[in-house]
Amino acid sequence: EKENKLWGGRFQESVTDAVERFSESVSFDKQLYKQDIRGSRAHATMLANQGLMSDSDKHCILSGLDEIERRIENGEFVWRADREDVHMNIEAALTDLIGEPAKKLHTARSRNDQVVTDLRLWCRDAIDQILSCIKQLQVGLIMLAKENDGLIVPGYTHLQRAQPVLLQHLLLSYVEQLERDFCRLVNCKDRLNVCPLGACALAGTGLPIDRFMTSEALGFSAPMKNSIDAVSDRDFVLEFLAANSITAIHLSRLGEEWVMWASEEFGFLTPSDKVSTGSSIMPQKKNPDPMELVRGKSARVVGDLVTLLVLCKGLPQAYNRDLQEDKEPLFDSVKTIIGMLEVTTEFAQNVTFNRQKIQKALPAGHLDATTLADYLVKKGIPFRTSHDIVGRSVALCVAKNCQLSDLTLDDFRIISPVFEEDVYEFLGVENCIKKFCSYGSTGSEMVAEQLNAWITKLNISGISS
Amino acid sequence: EKENKLWGGRFQESVTDAVERFSESVSFDKQLYKQDIRGSRAHATMLANQGLMSDSDKHCILSGLDEIERRIENGEFVWRADREDVHMNIEAALTDLIGEPAKKLHTARSRNDQVVTDLRLWCRDAIDQILSCIKQLQVGLIMLAKENDGLIVPGYTHLQRAQPVLLQHLLLSYVEQLERDFCRLVNCKDRLNVCPLGACALAGTGLPIDRFMTSEALGFSAPMKNSIDAVSDRDFVLEFLAANSITAIHLSRLGEEWVMWASEEFGFLTPSDKVSTGSSIMPQKKNPDPMELVRGKSARVVGDLVTLLVLCKGLPQAYNRDLQEDKEPLFDSVKTIIGMLEVTTEFAQNVTFNRQKIQKALPAGHLDATTLADYLVKKGIPFRTSHDIVGRSVALCVAKNCQLSDLTLDDFRIISPVFEEDVYEFLGVENCIKKFCSYGSTGSEMVAEQLNAWITKLNISGISS
Amino acid sequence: EKENKLWGGRFQESVTDAVERFSESVSFDKQLYKQDIRGSRAHATMLANQGLMSDSDKHCILSGLDEIERRIENGEFVWRADREDVHMNIEAALTDLIGEPAKKLHTARSRNDQVVTDLRLWCRDAIDQILSCIKQLQVGLIMLAKENDGLIVPGYTHLQRAQPVLLQHLLLSYVEQLERDFCRLVNCKDRLNVCPLGACALAGTGLPIDRFMTSEALGFSAPMKNSIDAVSDRDFVLEFLAANSITAIHLSRLGEEWVMWASEEFGFLTPSDKVSTGSSIMPQKKNPDPMELVRGKSARVVGDLVTLLVLCKGLPQAYNRDLQEDKEPLFDSVKTIIGMLEVTTEFAQNVTFNRQKIQKALPAGHLDATTLADYLVKKGIPFRTSHDIVGRSVALCVAKNCQLSDLTLDDFRIISPVFEEDVYEFLGVENCIKKFCSYGSTGSEMVAEQLNAWITKLNISGISS
Amino acid sequence: EKENKLWGGRFQESVTDAVERFSESVSFDKQLYKQDIRGSRAHATMLANQGLMSDSDKHCILSGLDEIERRIENGEFVWRADREDVHMNIEAALTDLIGEPAKKLHTARSRNDQVVTDLRLWCRDAIDQILSCIKQLQVGLIMLAKENDGLIVPGYTHLQRAQPVLLQHLLLSYVEQLERDFCRLVNCKDRLNVCPLGACALAGTGLPIDRFMTSEALGFSAPMKNSIDAVSDRDFVLEFLAANSITAIHLSRLGEEWVMWASEEFGFLTPSDKVSTGSSIMPQKKNPDPMELVRGKSARVVGDLVTLLVLCKGLPQAYNRDLQEDKEPLFDSVKTIIGMLEVTTEFAQNVTFNRQKIQKALPAGHLDATTLADYLVKKGIPFRTSHDIVGRSVALCVAKNCQLSDLTLDDFRIISPVFEEDVYEFLGVENCIKKFCSYGSTGSEMVAEQLNAWITKLNISGISS
Repeated sequence: EKENKLWGGRFQESVTDAVERFSESVSFDKQLYKQDIRGSRAHATMLANQGLMSDSDKHCILSGLDEIERRIENGEFVWRADREDVHMNIEAALTDLIGEPAKKLHTARSRNDQVVTDLRLWCRDAIDQILSCIKQLQVGLIMLAKENDGLIVPGYTHLQRAQPVLLQHLLLSYVEQLERDFCRLVNCKDRLNVCPLGACALAGTGLPIDRFMTSEALGFSAPMKNSIDAVSDRDFVLEFLAANSITAIHLSRLGEEWVMWASEEFGFLTPSDKVSTGSSIMPQKKNPDPMELVRGKSARVVGDLVTLLVLCKGLPQAYNRDLQEDKEPLFDSVKTIIGMLEVTTEFAQNVTFNRQKIQKALPAGHLDATTLADYLVKKGIPFRTSHDIVGRSVALCVAKNCQLSDLTLDDFRIISPVFEEDVYEFLGVENCIKKFCSYGSTGSEMVAEQLNAWITKLNISGISS
Repeated sequence: EKENKLWGGRFQESVTDAVERFSESVSFDKQLYKQDIRGSRAHATMLANQGLMSDSDKHCILSGLDEIERRIENGEFVWRADREDVHMNIEAALTDLIGEPAKKLHTARSRNDQVVTDLRLWCRDAIDQILSCIKQLQVGLIMLAKENDGLIVPGYTHLQRAQPVLLQHLLLSYVEQLERDFCRLVNCKDRLNVCPLGACALAGTGLPIDRFMTSEALGFSAPMKNSIDAVSDRDFVLEFLAANSITAIHLSRLGEEWVMWASEEFGFLTPSDKVSTGSSIMPQKKNPDPMELVRGKSARVVGDLVTLLVLCKGLPQAYNRDLQEDKEPLFDSVKTIIGMLEVTTEFAQNVTFNRQKIQKALPAGHLDATTLADYLVKKGIPFRTSHDIVGRSVALCVAKNCQLSDLTLDDFRIISPVFEEDVYEFLGVENCIKKFCSYGSTGSEMVAEQLNAWITKLNISGISS
Repeated sequence: EKENKLWGGRFQESVTDAVERFSESVSFDKQLYKQDIRGSRAHATMLANQGLMSDSDKHCILSGLDEIERRIENGEFVWRADREDVHMNIEAALTDLIGEPAKKLHTARSRNDQVVTDLRLWCRDAIDQILSCIKQLQVGLIMLAKENDGLIVPGYTHLQRAQPVLLQHLLLSYVEQLERDFCRLVNCKDRLNVCPLGACALAGTGLPIDRFMTSEALGFSAPMKNSIDAVSDRDFVLEFLAANSITAIHLSRLGEEWVMWASEEFGFLTPSDKVSTGSSIMPQKKNPDPMELVRGKSARVVGDLVTLLVLCKGLPQAYNRDLQEDKEPLFDSVKTIIGMLEVTTEFAQNVTFNRQKIQKALPAGHLDATTLADYLVKKGIPFRTSHDIVGRSVALCVAKNCQLSDLTLDDFRIISPVFEEDVYEFLGVENCIKKFCSYGSTGSEMVAEQLNAWITKLNISGISS
Repeated sequence: EKENKLWGGRFQESVTDAVERFSESVSFDKQLYKQDIRGSRAHATMLANQGLMSDSDKHCILSGLDEIERRIENGEFVWRADREDVHMNIEAALTDLIGEPAKKLHTARSRNDQVVTDLRLWCRDAIDQILSCIKQLQVGLIMLAKENDGLIVPGYTHLQRAQPVLLQHLLLSYVEQLERDFCRLVNCKDRLNVCPLGACALAGTGLPIDRFMTSEALGFSAPMKNSIDAVSDRDFVLEFLAANSITAIHLSRLGEEWVMWASEEFGFLTPSDKVSTGSSIMPQKKNPDPMELVRGKSARVVGDLVTLLVLCKGLPQAYNRDLQEDKEPLFDSVKTIIGMLEVTTEFAQNVTFNRQKIQKALPAGHLDATTLADYLVKKGIPFRTSHDIVGRSVALCVAKNCQLSDLTLDDFRIISPVFEEDVYEFLGVENCIKKFCSYGSTGSEMVAEQLNAWITKLNISGISS
């Protein structure tokens, strides 16, 4: 026969199986067990301290919780769908284990404040984990940059070759983006690290609890100031999922770039066998799957965010059962983003840039055209006129099927008399790179400086900055 | 030691554990086992028929597949993450089981066409299941309508009381919406029911296969006409998830309505204990959780659609590994929408409309104002003028804190001399309902006709239409 | 001083300016003027026919509407935000113009059924326009295919070269996808082409209107059967926006492919100057902007769909003011998808495939490996073994830095004794293409057949199919 | 004849009209004119300072820009679609106006860094405006709270009556949420307030510019450190739109609550005529449209975010034309959220809570059940047992159709002998409110304290805190 629900006092019939199956959350919210137990420990300690529970009850509860945690971690704990959620499972198991004292644990607490306390603790831990993964990817990218010193690659706009850039400069652009992702999560964590415990169902309680004590015990910065707000809102999850989405979009872009660079046509990059897969029908294939999946999995991180936005839209205060649906998108987003970061890091550690092939390809695309325009500006030609002169020089190259550096001085001077012998110092990608000097540019010194700053900042040992 | 991948001919190192974990799909695509085996049966039979495999090899394969299916269904099959996906797991197990002949099964087939064949078969089955759930909900709503014959409820616009409507009419409006959801899925199913098998990796094959034979064996309407299209596109999943999203939005609206109607303030509807839950802290609570969850779960159905849209955006032809990520949103969408439909049906079967409370509440809100305007129109007053006259009559009621039917004929005639004694036949909600006569309106006869039409159409036995 | 609102009978104060600005819709819903006037014509004609309006009133109204339509189309009509929406603007202008009879037009009609009638008419017209654009793009792609007869290009999976395919085959894969987009819209149009007019506010009316007459006059297939459903639901817009989103995703994929193919690295495709743009700083640039924008604009079509899904989520029946927000996403989606289709068509007409460059690039990537595996299968080797043999052959090529066709028969026979002299008939991309024979494959005859079928189906003149 | 594009050096044909229409952005990016001119002033001043332009050229440019700004603001400026975007329009107009010197303005600048500079400046201004609107809404809510001192309303969970709360407490819960929205935007603003100018196309420049000077002149906190990152990324827009989405979701919830409270059934709240609208057919209607639209418009803010996420997904570094599509969603999101905040503020100023009706409704729903459970806990009963006892007491009330306070002491003592005469001090909503004492609870003193803290924090004059 079915066990009575803990809330079942006024109920005469059990819910149907379909409703039970549809409503249960323990199959996924059991992930919160560590946070739930941690919260219960703090709560019981506070209750005892406030005289709402005897010390001996507290000790029973604390050692009961220890035992339950042990069982869960050893896989000995039986999760029961008919006990609905992680909270009821643990509380009911505690009652099975220690009897009467367990019935006092839920004093001055509701599942409404309990679940959101668990969730904030879980998010805090999850963010710490993601922060560490971001840092590892930054380190991976910087190591890759360090290994590829001096390598010039085409820089693209519109996927058309635009100007030469140092590969290091390109890799550092991703490091910069990840840094903002990092800071966004730090802000998010600071904002969510406040304690809802004690808000109870929605209105607080008339029992003499000490919310500052539990808040401190759980490492929160403060108790939340409004009990209705505490149980109603999931904006911290929205902010977290939005931050993950932005990180995911960044990674999808790196994924796209590396998948493209690994193609026969680009051929700039070869992943090692350790991060490639083959084809069940085409024996010659070697696919950069991990980066395709990184790109693809960005979609689910975005989908998770959308789920939560749609979920919260139009719900009145305070707790509505809809909010139960906040967990799976959150868990999925976190698991996915961590996987994406880890695998990208591993890919970065297992990729070779094909220096020769890149260098051979560099002359194409007139990458030095803009540097040539700068040359003319330095000679005093207004930029718009320079742009036009270089445009005509490029047209000549296209007609002759040659590079700018292949044009003779006569060729140049027919287009404009301003050209002089020193023009050749501004042509060719190596010359271009040398000329860049503005702050943040791809000039060698600038890039070296940034690279060193990152090595220092990330405290990467084994590399002399 | 690790087993060699089936595609591993040219590979010298295994993928890393993190990549394997990140890339594997068997943990979720094993759901496709039935479809995968079904496809392999049809494929092997065709290969034998075309002389690409001996009959004895075919027999080995078919009985091997039977055994594997049996093991899976008995829980005896060991799914291995290092074998990546459902296809490789089954093929490798087949090789373990029957040896050499198994190596011929993948002739003229690639995982690219195999997976999308499985997926189309799976979607076809899933749609059939959803169609049946939709029909059951329609039946549930019609039974509920039948039980509540003659019950008048306020009709709302802007959540303000607007006009009286028959509850049956309101319930039938949901039946109509579900009918369009039904038809949308039927269109989707017809469109996706074409066979990609034989497209191989992307280009077809030079082996003399018979794609019409496999298509027919699998119940598809025809083989797909372009092999690149066959392996590249997931528009059928997008269309399916979009159809589910629209259904989910419909259900979210019913959820909202019923949650609101179950509130103390409305009090129009009481769910039975079988579909309600209580509170862990507030002993008096009886919450309509299932309908809150129906409303909430609509969010994940939308999120799943967004995931797939983001996934497919900007992928070039043909197969990209990103597409592996199509399955989880699909599975989740289907599971969720089925749960939503089932639970809503069950809720409909366990709900009581509180006739007395509703009737008591009906006089409020001047629900007969529009009927009064129609009265004036019938007397020859232009509608805009009627609207204004009724507006002033309502203002008088507001001032007097009474209903329109409480105004005396003198009151009315001060506002306009057109009013006559027969005005009282147009006031009060029962009179209103009697007056409605336009096709599709809430007039009693109209509604009865529609209700009967639905009972006949859905072939609901036990109800005389 | 402010004009009284037409609904203002019971109101004593005007809305504030901020509310008026926030609430007005005429700035965008004036796009519906043609449909609104068309609806009013049908409505007035029906009212007169039913004796709810005199013939002379009807004539006044009809000629007044003609005059208003003329003014709007000549830019002489003054749209007023204080008259809120297109309906009130036209009705108030009609009153200004013809006086008293105009006040009868709104008999047995509400803005609720009026706006959704307009919207369904508008969608129907919009779908026709999109259908025509899809057909034009299909024609454009087929013309392009026709011009590039016999051109073999690499087929990709995972963006790695997989097998050779005919460019025609690839282009036809997009034609197939567009065909499904076409059919999806046809289904959508059929489903939405039903008439809500006469549902009035939500409950129908007691006046003796003829809904079948207006439905027929407006070209709808039938009046809607439930008045609450008629004014409440926007599923037809959701379905339309979902269909557009799928089309947009298809186009984003073509955009991605063509942007990539236009890169220096691929170099397979050159857009003409007519569909390219340059750079304000880099004079040599020639960017395939239109296809980048096609890819980018797919995002807003998806965003529009999401807006509408979020909008409708959780709204109770019947009309809620939220629904006013359905129009801008709809209008934007339609405008965007039409632009995307038109510009892609134009791009297709202005693009050159670089036959020489493509042919030169073809040997790379072992595109013939799968055909070689088929060769072995034909010799009786089980596929998995063939796959392995070819894998080792490719590994040898990689080691020797050569193509499969460069291996000597001795090289082959060391790997497997099955190889014979006829192996060379299966190597090289031209041989591969010749070998493909399965239905829907990239074999020359198969493709020619499909191409001709499309030419016939689309009735493309000037091309002999 | 068409004007040559400024980038047209190497082009021989103009783009087609359809492409021009599809590609132009001036119709919406002209909104950036102020920021664009501001950026050009700083850029010209820096160029002159660095000797890249003469002082006299600089003066020409600065006064030319003044004149152009004047013309734009007076509506005298002609925006030309054939000049593509705001940047080209202003530069070309400057050339028309001052001739040769204008050609020097684009030195060491590309549209790529120019547009993103404009955009960051625009976002900064927009955020300031939103911050101010948030603060005004907070003030509005607090004023409303102040006016409704002591008013007790039902607190809901699952939309079922749960516990009594002070209306002030409920209103402050929204103030808390808005405060987090505020802080989120402040973080976003700090993060985006860095200067991309000088990144040029993507690689920086070889000309001796001073990026610190322009950064400071434009009020940025620093120049961005990586030029590729500077032109590639739009994460600041994503973060901004995500922050707006969260705010929008908060407002949608308030919208839902107030729409519901304005219904006949709740009847807790009456909006004044200044923020209500009527019906074109139902003369008695008075609809809370502004809050419905607030709820509805949240959808487009979410849609705008999704658009940008989809847009950025999978784009490789650096600038791609797709990014042009970042502006309209951004502009729309900002305009919408400002409107939502303003109108909600105005609604708050025009709403009356119906004290009498609320008070009359309060006894229903057993709002004091939880306080009764606390009573038993204080008597030493374990909470789970108390919960059960109260559950049975409520069941008795349901059976007797009465309130808890109507039960006799005998009734209570039959259920549990623990009840004593003092139980009646814990029953009835006023008693409940008095009992709440936990920090953040709805207890009168707690709420008064919070209210005063907000009055002080927001520096609301005219209210004594």
